[in-house]
Amino acid sequence: MGVFVGVAALVAVAAVLWAAYATWSIVRHSQGTDRMKEIQHYIRDGAYAFMLEEARVMTISMLVVGGVLGLLFYWEVMVAFWIGSILSMAAGFVGMNAATLANGRTTEAARSSFKNALNVAFTGGTAMGMGVAGLALGGLALVVWLFRGDFDPATLTIETKTIFGIPGADVNFIKGAIIVSAYSAGASLVALFDRVGGGIYTKAADMAADMVGKVELKLPEDDPRNPATIADNVGDNVGDVGGLGADLLESFIASIISVSIIGMYLHVGRANPDIAGLIARYGEGFQDLANYWWMVLLPMLFVSGGIVSTLIAFAYIRLSRARENMQPVLMNGTRLAAGLTVALAALTTWLSPSNFVPFWCMLLGVGSGIGIGFTSEYFTSSSYKPTRQLAESYQSGPAIGVTEGMAVGMLSALWPCLIIGGAMIITYLLGGLLGTAFGALGMLSFVGMTVSVDSYGPIADNASGIATMSALDPSVRERTDKLDSIGNTTAAIGKGFAIGSAAFAALALIAAYLWSAAGLADEVHVPNIPLIDPERGALVLAGMIVGGMVTYVFSALLIRSVSRTADLMVQEIRRQFRENPDIMEGKTTPDYKRCITITASGATRKMVLPSALALGTPLVVGLIFGRFALAGFLVGALISAVVLAIYCANAGGSMDNAKKYVEEGNFGGKGSPAHDAGVTADTVGDPLKDTVGPSLDILIKLMSVVSLLFASLFPITPFFMR
Amino acid sequence: MGVFVGVAALVAVAAVLWAAYATWSIVRHSQGTDRMKEIQHYIRDGAYAFMLEEARVMTISMLVVGGVLGLLFYWEVMVAFWIGSILSMAAGFVGMNAATLANGRTTEAARSSFKNALNVAFTGGTAMGMGVAGLALGGLALVVWLFRGDFDPATLTIETKTIFGIPGADVNFIKGAIIVSAYSAGASLVALFDRVGGGIYTKAADMAADMVGKVELKLPEDDPRNPATIADNVGDNVGDVGGLGADLLESFIASIISVSIIGMYLHVGRANPDIAGLIARYGEGFQDLANYWWMVLLPMLFVSGGIVSTLIAFAYIRLSRARENMQPVLMNGTRLAAGLTVALAALTTWLSPSNFVPFWCMLLGVGSGIGIGFTSEYFTSSSYKPTRQLAESYQSGPAIGVTEGMAVGMLSALWPCLIIGGAMIITYLLGGLLGTAFGALGMLSFVGMTVSVDSYGPIADNASGIATMSALDPSVRERTDKLDSIGNTTAAIGKGFAIGSAAFAALALIAAYLWSAAGLADEVHVPNIPLIDPERGALVLAGMIVGGMVTYVFSALLIRSVSRTADLMVQEIRRQFRENPDIMEGKTTPDYKRCITITASGATRKMVLPSALALGTPLVVGLIFGRFALAGFLVGALISAVVLAIYCANAGGSMDNAKKYVEEGNFGGKGSPAHDAGVTADTVGDPLKDTVGPSLDILIKLMSVVSLLFASLFPITPFFMR
Repeated sequence: MGVFVGVAALVAVAAVLWAAYATWSIVRHSQGTDRMKEIQHYIRDGAYAFMLEEARVMTISMLVVGGVLGLLFYWEVMVAFWIGSILSMAAGFVGMNAATLANGRTTEAARSSFKNALNVAFTGGTAMGMGVAGLALGGLALVVWLFRGDFDPATLTIETKTIFGIPGADVNFIKGAIIVSAYSAGASLVALFDRVGGGIYTKAADMAADMVGKVELKLPEDDPRNPATIADNVGDNVGDVGGLGADLLESFIASIISVSIIGMYLHVGRANPDIAGLIARYGEGFQDLANYWWMVLLPMLFVSGGIVSTLIAFAYIRLSRARENMQPVLMNGTRLAAGLTVALAALTTWLSPSNFVPFWCMLLGVGSGIGIGFTSEYFTSSSYKPTRQLAESYQSGPAIGVTEGMAVGMLSALWPCLIIGGAMIITYLLGGLLGTAFGALGMLSFVGMTVSVDSYGPIADNASGIATMSALDPSVRERTDKLDSIGNTTAAIGKGFAIGSAAFAALALIAAYLWSAAGLADEVHVPNIPLIDPERGALVLAGMIVGGMVTYVFSALLIRSVSRTADLMVQEIRRQFRENPDIMEGKTTPDYKRCITITASGATRKMVLPSALALGTPLVVGLIFGRFALAGFLVGALISAVVLAIYCANAGGSMDNAKKYVEEGNFGGKGSPAHDAGVTADTVGDPLKDTVGPSLDILIKLMSVVSLLFASLFPITPFFMR
Repeated sequence: MGVFVGVAALVAVAAVLWAAYATWSIVRHSQGTDRMKEIQHYIRDGAYAFMLEEARVMTISMLVVGGVLGLLFYWEVMVAFWIGSILSMAAGFVGMNAATLANGRTTEAARSSFKNALNVAFTGGTAMGMGVAGLALGGLALVVWLFRGDFDPATLTIETKTIFGIPGADVNFIKGAIIVSAYSAGASLVALFDRVGGGIYTKAADMAADMVGKVELKLPEDDPRNPATIADNVGDNVGDVGGLGADLLESFIASIISVSIIGMYLHVGRANPDIAGLIARYGEGFQDLANYWWMVLLPMLFVSGGIVSTLIAFAYIRLSRARENMQPVLMNGTRLAAGLTVALAALTTWLSPSNFVPFWCMLLGVGSGIGIGFTSEYFTSSSYKPTRQLAESYQSGPAIGVTEGMAVGMLSALWPCLIIGGAMIITYLLGGLLGTAFGALGMLSFVGMTVSVDSYGPIADNASGIATMSALDPSVRERTDKLDSIGNTTAAIGKGFAIGSAAFAALALIAAYLWSAAGLADEVHVPNIPLIDPERGALVLAGMIVGGMVTYVFSALLIRSVSRTADLMVQEIRRQFRENPDIMEGKTTPDYKRCITITASGATRKMVLPSALALGTPLVVGLIFGRFALAGFLVGALISAVVLAIYCANAGGSMDNAKKYVEEGNFGGKGSPAHDAGVTADTVGDPLKDTVGPSLDILIKLMSVVSLLFASLFPITPFFMR
């Protein structure tokens, strides 16, 4: 075990050190003029204030949920849960901190040259990427090392515990599996709050700023006279950086622990010939008891390789920064990270006692991620037909524009779902549910790179905002806008990865749940969950319908939260202009703070209900209808959420880029009726792509990990069928 | 058998006679002025022309698919398929014929009194309702009687047939089950074309008429100067009447034959103790071999009771027509039909050798249907909070309006899904999959009433159009509008029924499919389909993802068809106004025919691809990935489609009614910014509620019945796993 934890810890420390170095190297850059400093100060203060307010809610939730876990299971479970929560919060802060340091400095660097600006912005992104990857892996290594006794192959067994001392209320589980599940669940809970809260914040601010600023008063984007403009920039940092970081940290952890948990069940169930047959698929190595740690902790080595590869890719990008055209450099960097990750995984597999089944599954995961990323780009980039046709349809007015945008989103579900379905079948054929879990791991193995590229976008976006608000020379904004557009292309692939990886991570968690749910009494079985059977019958099917529905209700709550918070803000903006006409003349600064406070308190209050829904429904379904119905519930939610999330992300992305395509001078350009239709379509698409889509990713992961954690508590046959 | 077929045939004849009588009694009324006659002529010609064009495509498809069935199985299967197709087409024509006869006569009657108008319109609706119910039941009685040898309990067995004489290509099935499946599939194919084609037609015409007429030229609704106005009225008849009729006819047949097919499998599998246990749940009666016909044909008696009850309810409504306030009379009529249906079912059950399990399941179906109808009304009627709040949000502009409308639709999925899930579990617990099929039957047992009430709406809508176009006194339009609004409230329940019944009918078909798929080799098993298992593993799960995706792609194709056909039409309308300015002055009539031709050819051409998708995907999945993957595919599609269909129907309905609520003078009334936002939101919602939602209902039924029909052809283990 020492080797695995040691390597992971070492790599994690290296990653965190890089994050610190990157942050330090950003700080060294100049912050620019006084006006720029002032604006950066506003944004940073606003972002910190909001994330601290969120952290307060999260800390209370974390303490309560952790305490319940401690009472139900053991104190170790509680501690693991807390570690997961704290690290997830920390990842959000690290990213947000780096991003709010880098934004103004990127603007300042853009005053001298485009390349300097790119350098600062990308360095900010890498701080986040490495922070996420390093903290996730380091935390897991810590948990495994702290509670190493509970993972020991010699003593690993199905334990029985009596809940609250109630006679007959016995539950069976593997303690080590519960501990790592709790670690993942802790991260998940925080990620949900971060994603939902950040998502509501960012879109409410954005919509309000656009609706009053752009539509009513015809102010340009990021005009300092618009009171919501700072809140809009804060939103980018708390939603697109903080939320994204926590979300991918959770996917990353989930994909690692799923493999470990299934590995533990396989080990405990070795005596069962079915399970022995499954282990045999991985060659003689895994059949050997002595190689237990390889079976359970191999993913730690795979992702350590991914982090090392990402660091090498960073070095390549840094060395290439003298090049003229940076977009291919970024793309090549991503390819390099992916390729090296695969190569290191092949090497690790070759050194391991396993055959190449884990490697092939992982490779399929990487390939699927890239494939899904490509289809996202095809449907959302204005270089391809779907978005160009959408832009053309804007000429027929906003209603047709929105309708066609929805159609593009719906159509875009085709390939990702075929890819996911295909990868599911192939990985299962290769290695059973463990193979599927390895597939998920592949997709997430070089998460450091995808997060870096993804969070570079909002930094560039902020930099543009600061340039305009500080009334810098227009050439500066041109440079930062170019930066932004490079980010968009690269980020399209990243977004595809986020959805694909969430689907796979949730699938891996469900796989682990199925193993836990099938681990009945004191014997472990290969999961055999009926869709419909003569005994428990329609429970699974009914669970599916309810699961499919919950994703819609969750989405509805989010959309309402966004539009209602935006509405409050619209009223505030109108009030400021009405009561203080000097603002419009540019003679006095508007009350930015008040807008920030309104959005922040709206977002924190409104993130509670959807979060409670996500936490509560699997518990209710599990406790009342039992493990089988819950399996159906999770699968129904997964299917519904994956398709809906792809739809939301791509419909929103395409509507946005089609609007930008019109702005570039096509179909009448800015100010034309097509552009007006595009602005409306974009506003409809905004909460879909930036609030609902990303939140659905974490919804299915959270529901799955909660189910995994509490699986042993749920009855096999519900009370009304006994 | 004679008794069952005799009763069904008798009731079916009575229903068809009523339809004929109703049509005759409409024709006796006056058609009104020459101008009114002219317009009615245009609408009727347009509707006939389109439905004949559709019928051409359907006839070719029907001949081809039927021929393939004949070659694969037996000539009897082909004949049953053709009977189903022809009756489904006939039902569409009967309804459309009555509706196009009743529309102008309703207007004419409205010139004298409101009650006369209601009488004509409702009589038109009953012609459709009884036509649908009578033809469906009569056709089934005919098929069972024609091929009675294939349903004979003495010889009923699992047959083996070698496909195309290919050695080893043996399939196993029960011939009688295949015959009734083919009957249902024939009806289904035509219903799909009717729904999709009619749905595209009606919304393309509506959107085009609104976009140019209302938005660009500020013409009022149904202005005769608008060249698209006749096409819009034709659309109501081919979509909302013809399409609806064919759709519910298919649900009705599907729910009957599902019970019969499962009954046949139970009979053949009696020797299996599991199956014997299942039969025992229905009491000693069904265990007796002599009561075979009761087990298989009981649903025919239930629905015969439903038709008789509906006829009695018609009589009640006719007798009450002297009353002041007709809305409660219509509601009471519906309640009476439901109550009597339940009472007659109880009586039938009491006379039958079964215990009350079928009755309870059926009752639960009726209750669920009413429950779903009520939730639809709550979310879409402006008497309740959700739609009023939506109307309020229109004040913040079209983007917020559409966004909030989507949220209402998503939220509205909550209760229907809980109801469906609950009904699924309870009916299964009571009587296995047969119980679930009885639940579906309950929901559809008084279909004659729901269709009558539903198709009365478009007649009233047309009547209003004719009033305006004929420049009658505004008081006439007021009366017909009142008629329309009464129809809307009653139809909300009908719409809920349509969705709920489609979900249940599809579920019943899937249940029958599961029985067929489980009927392996020469022995029948109780279906036990794994969601995930060690052998075939992730096939079912992967099938689900793909099934979930197909509903979105299907919806995308429909939306695009609507908006592109509307676009062609917009160009044509603009051309007419541009080339002939006299139209705008009202000096010359626009070229209505050309608009009708454009929409009709657009709709017929564009219904082919979605239909091919619906027909083809289950075959591809079944042939390549086998029966288990197909089970997953159907379930995934069902879940995705049910939630999406509820979302579409209620989002669209709420956006429409919120707009009407604004028009009534709230939040600024007509011409206010809130109203403009409402018009945009309504245009976005229109294809959702009138094209996508209804088509999804038939999509899942068609895919399920196609799977049921071809089940025996699909491998149990796919080729790549052997």
